[in-house]
Formats: sequence, structure tokens, C-alpha cells
Amino acid sequence: MILAVDVGGTKLAAARVSPEGAIVETRRAATPQDADAETLWRALREVIGPLSDGVAGVGVGCGGPMEWPSGVVSPLNIPGWRGFPLRARLSGLFPGVPVRVHNDAICLAVAEHWRGAGRGVADMLGMVVSTGVGGGLVLGGRLVDGGTGNAGHIGHVVVDPDGGPPCGCGGHGCLEAVARGPALTAWALGRGWTPGDPAAQGDYQEERAVTARTLAADARAGDEVAVAAMSRAGRALGIAIASATHLCDLDLVTIGGGLSQAGEPLFGPLEEALREHARMAFARRLRVVPASLGQDAGLIGAAALILASDTY
Amino acid sequence: MILAVDVGGTKLAAARVSPEGAIVETRRAATPQDADAETLWRALREVIGPLSDGVAGVGVGCGGPMEWPSGVVSPLNIPGWRGFPLRARLSGLFPGVPVRVHNDAICLAVAEHWRGAGRGVADMLGMVVSTGVGGGLVLGGRLVDGGTGNAGHIGHVVVDPDGGPPCGCGGHGCLEAVARGPALTAWALGRGWTPGDPAAQGDYQEERAVTARTLAADARAGDEVAVAAMSRAGRALGIAIASATHLCDLDLVTIGGGLSQAGEPLFGPLEEALREHARMAFARRLRVVPASLGQDAGLIGAAALILASDTY
Repeated sequence: MILAVDVGGTKLAAARVSPEGAIVETRRAATPQDADAETLWRALREVIGPLSDGVAGVGVGCGGPMEWPSGVVSPLNIPGWRGFPLRARLSGLFPGVPVRVHNDAICLAVAEHWRGAGRGVADMLGMVVSTGVGGGLVLGGRLVDGGTGNAGHIGHVVVDPDGGPPCGCGGHGCLEAVARGPALTAWALGRGWTPGDPAAQGDYQEERAVTARTLAADARAGDEVAVAAMSRAGRALGIAIASATHLCDLDLVTIGGGLSQAGEPLFGPLEEALREHARMAFARRLRVVPASLGQDAGLIGAAALILASDTY
Repeated sequence: MILAVDVGGTKLAAARVSPEGAIVETRRAATPQDADAETLWRALREVIGPLSDGVAGVGVGCGGPMEWPSGVVSPLNIPGWRGFPLRARLSGLFPGVPVRVHNDAICLAVAEHWRGAGRGVADMLGMVVSTGVGGGLVLGGRLVDGGTGNAGHIGHVVVDPDGGPPCGCGGHGCLEAVARGPALTAWALGRGWTPGDPAAQGDYQEERAVTARTLAADARAGDEVAVAAMSRAGRALGIAIASATHLCDLDLVTIGGGLSQAGEPLFGPLEEALREHARMAFARRLRVVPASLGQDAGLIGAAALILASDTY
């Protein structure tokens, strides 16, 4: 058995995974908010403790940034961990077994390539469009880490160099500045959008809140501002993906995260902008599809870091 | 000995290269213009004929597009070759030895990584800024081919999606549409630039013509329109390189081709735009330097396809 761990700003998750890659048992807990480093570590130990018997390897996806491959993490959304030696601590708990830590967006891309929509594809970008916009690159059938483990950061591909909004990175006009969920909802709220009738929104509590999911549902229902917001995000995604496929000669892009189920209001304008800009003959084969794995994707990708370490 | 071949729209070049990578003998000829496929093939045979004794492998860089790795080439600048089976023909001349054909821009990137400014670097983009804008990617110390041998096409990264000029690829706002030599000179001519005093331009005949080299020299001499043209190209390059390094987590970009010696008027605005947009911590280490190899770079890269085929 190996242990897969997914560390996020709102949730800590872990799973026992069989050598064949099947998730045998999963445990989850809320990430303690405003907690110090040791409180966070204790919370993580409580999640993984009952899963620890006979563990032969530990794979971890964690929010960035981090020092890679040493696994000293400083997740943006976990302020209590700044320079926290997550990999070393886990090696202390599981002496003598391999422990690998990688960026969470990379684990999601790895999961889609290993077990999801990208299975068997040689050259793909696995994206996540959520609070942030990130991704991971698989080229020639192997994960590309980049010099510091940060390859795949498509959120900071420039899509609007002159007029684009400021980005959290300090730049402006990045894809993430346009297409991250909070940017989308802020743009729509500023133009008079109010989240639609809760009864029309489906099963999830969060869909009644000011989220990109609600916005996407309202766009599907025809709300004009919501449609415009989704179209703006879709265009930005299409432009960035055109740049990425010209640079990396891709077969496939998968889109996961909160917006992956947004449907036509997002994917229509995305495809249109992509076909407008991805004009080299070799770029035309590119397919863009929603990610196919659900909430366990991060754990599956983390498991692959150990179970398929020759590829990832 | 191996044979290295560089097929371009204006020039055919070939060299005998020692197993250690030293160029022993080089031959060049003008590419026949308006010639049919067999005339072009005879011209190439005349160049390589005297270099053919005891050849143990053939590496070829050729203008794209091409089918890769089969080496069926249709170089944009050689209209007489459309679907020409260059690799198969060379295999016929040199039976039983490996023959590899790759895009010329990729050979230039390979050369810089193998023997030039990128030696020892794990993650780099080797660019060429000339009549077109192209490149090749080395990630994790290995050449990235992409699914169809076209990875590295940074010329079609989008730098100005809304207002950008039309591009030869059919899109608009691509880096190449802004920064290729003919686009630069056309932009400057349209704003009143006339190529400066020939005596001030240096040794090369071509520098007295309407070329990007002349424009760069005039910019260095302070011509206002030339300065603005170089600044515009530099900014476009900086934006595209920012996108590339966020996506691929690079250590180094090398810039070869006619503009590589343009100096401060190009590289100043390039650095400024790069630092404005490459703001993620991991992107700040990126260095951008002129390519260090001269006119033999294409041959050196072609040789590497055989002599260092485990890396390239």
C-alpha cells in the first residue's frame, strides 16, 4: 500500500492506494484556519494516522509555491506554513520509504494523464481553473517538472499585455487575472450580476453563493452579464491555450476545477478563440476537454508520483 | 565521420563532423531558386557528394513544415519541395546508417544547448529571430519534440490578441507577426524610416539594404523610428518569453538569427517587458542572452541529432 496526500487551503485529504492504483480508503478533514505550523501538522497527522500501516511510499500534492523537489512548502492559502519542511516531516514518520511532494496543479494533471481524460496521450497540458489557474505538462509521455518544479503554470501566460487586469503575481494581463473564479465573479458583480434563483442552481450549497459555479449556471440559464463573463474567460483561456500548443505541440488540454463543468458558455468562446489563434497546421489537432476525474483527482495524482515514478 | 546538412531557402550547407563534434570540412551552395524537386535534390547531392566517404550517420536541419520524424519536407521557402521525402532519399544514398531530419529552428536550439550559450543548462528555449521567429525547447536536459516535431514554435505565441497584426499562419497578434525582420522593416518604412548612411553600417553588403540588421544599426545610431521599431519588437519578445518561462520554467533563452546582435535597442525593451510580466518567483531567474554560435550553428545542431541522439 502507498499513502497519497492532498493538502489544500480548505481541505486535507489522504488515501491508502493499492499497488494497482485503486483507492482503498480515504479520509478528509477541514484545514485548520489561522493555525500555526505545528497545529496544521497535527491536523495532517490525524488524517493520515489511521492509514499508515505498512505504507511503502508517500506521494503528496500541496499548494504552491514550494521548494522542489525538497518539499519545503509555503502554500499561498495556508499562511501558517511558510518554509514548512513537509517532505522531511513525512520522511520522519515513514522512515526508509520514498516520499515525494509536488505542486497540487501538477498532481491533477498527472492524475488526468494516468487515469483520466489524458490516458495514452503523449503530449498534454492538464489545467485547473479554480481560485487560481494552474496546470501541469506531460510531453513525450513524461511529466515535465521544469527547473524548479513549476512547469505548467499556464495561469501566468500573458493574454492581454496592454489592457489586462493586475494579477496576484505582480504582473498584469495574465490568464489567471482574467479567468480565475473570483476575478470572474467580481467582473460580473461589477456589471450588475446577482446570483440567480437558488432553486435553479442544482444540488450544491455552494452554487447558491457568489461563485464561478453559480455564474456558470446563470450563464447557461441565459443571464446576459453571466454569459459575457463566461465568454471573456473562455476567450482568455483559448488565447493562452493557443500559445501553449504552439510552444509545446500538444495533443490534448484537460480543464479541471470549478469551471470544468461550465459547458457551452465557457467552452464555446474558448474553442472560438483557440481556433482563431491556433492556426499552424500542427496546432489544429488539439482537443480541449473537461477533466474526467472528480474530487479524488489530487489523491490519484499524488499516488502516481510513487506508483508511476518513472513517468511522473 | 558523420554528415551534417543544413537546408535553407537561400543556402545549402553540409559538413563532415568528427565523432567528437568538430567540423572537419564544410561546403556551401546557393539554393536553386524556382527549381523543381529533382533539380533541388541534384544541387544538394553536389554539395554533399565530396563529403560522403565513410559516413556513419546523417543529421539534417531543414526549413519547416515537415512530417516528423519521417522527414517528408515542404519548406515554406523552397516551393519546389512539397512533400519531398528528404530523409528517405538520404537513406537511399547512405544505406544502413541512421538518418535524422528535424526543423532548422530546432537544430539551432540544439546547437546552442550542445556547444553554445546553453551548454550545461537543463531548461532552455533556443530562439531564432530572422525572416521568421522560431525555436526549440530543451527541458530536463533533453530536446522536447512535441507530438509532431514542432515544439518550440514561440513565433506563434500570442502577444497582442486584439490589436495585433495579421500573421502568415492565418492568425493575428502572434510574436512572429510583430518581430520577424520583414515586419519590423515594413513597420519602420511605413513611419518614414530610410536605411541610414551605408558607410556607417559595417562590412556586410546586406546591411546597406532594407533589412532588420540595417534597422538595428540605425537604432543604435539613434534614428528615432528605428529605435521605436526595435522597442516594439523587443517588447513583443519579452511578453512571449514571459509566457514561455511561466509555462516551461526555464533557466535560459538564447536568441539567434539576424537580430541577435541588435544590442540595447532590442534587448533593453525586451528585458523591461520580460521583468514586467515574468513576476512569479520561479520566473525571475531566467536569463536571456544572444546565441553564441555563428553561421555553422545549423550544421552543429544537425550533427548533434546523430552524435548526441540520446539527448536530442
